[in-house]
Amino acid sequence: MSMSDPAQQAAALLADFRAANVLAADCPSRLVLGHLTSRWGTLVMIVLATGPHRFSQLRRSIGGVSERMLAQTLQQLEADGFVLRLAHKVVPPHVDYSLTDLGMEAAAHVVALSAWIEAKLPEILGKTAMAAE
Amino acid sequence: MSMSDPAQQAAALLADFRAANVLAADCPSRLVLGHLTSRWGTLVMIVLATGPHRFSQLRRSIGGVSERMLAQTLQQLEADGFVLRLAHKVVPPHVDYSLTDLGMEAAAHVVALSAWIEAKLPEILGKTAMAAE
Repeated sequence: MSMSDPAQQAAALLADFRAANVLAADCPSRLVLGHLTSRWGTLVMIVLATGPHRFSQLRRSIGGVSERMLAQTLQQLEADGFVLRLAHKVVPPHVDYSLTDLGMEAAAHVVALSAWIEAKLPEILGKTAMAAE
Repeated sequence: MSMSDPAQQAAALLADFRAANVLAADCPSRLVLGHLTSRWGTLVMIVLATGPHRFSQLRRSIGGVSERMLAQTLQQLEADGFVLRLAHKVVPPHVDYSLTDLGMEAAAHVVALSAWIEAKLPEILGKTAMAAE
């Protein structure tokens, strides 16, 4: 199905309840969607899409994230199989976070959405200003 | 840039701070990203991508949403220029919500992410189960 026809794709998504249904309150797909689109989850996926990072590097890259929220976000994404935590047995010890193959596929969609927003921001802010008048 | 190389696209996204930068805590693009990826914002965009809906139809389509949260979500998406609110002058009066052209572009990305999650859910849940062991 082509990305150029989102109406058709959305209709197919809603019609096909066999595998999963994000619109159902109790479907696990909604939890996964929540992890990938959480305040920090989206940004972690974008940064990790550029390559492996240590915890401290991630924290510096993502403006405003606390140590606690970053740790919790990484744990969620690791449990979903999107992020790999690799502890190197060196002195001093260090830990790398990277995307799994599945995580890279998920990141592609999150990156595409964010890139679209960044590119369209002037247009979006123009409409916001008009709406506020 | 091809969707098949998310690493390259993510790197370009992070390098190009001219227009906007979702990683900066104070960039308005992060607010817009927040609206499109909010708990209910994502689901509203998916349903509206299939065509115009009345408020009550939206509420029935999205499991678990309250009247208050749906109204607030629609207002945010309308202010960003993604959703059009059209009040028909008929008796009894009724209001349709639909996507603008800009909203349809945004919805394409949100729908693609959700469709990917629904398709991959068995694989994701398999990894979740393994991680919990």
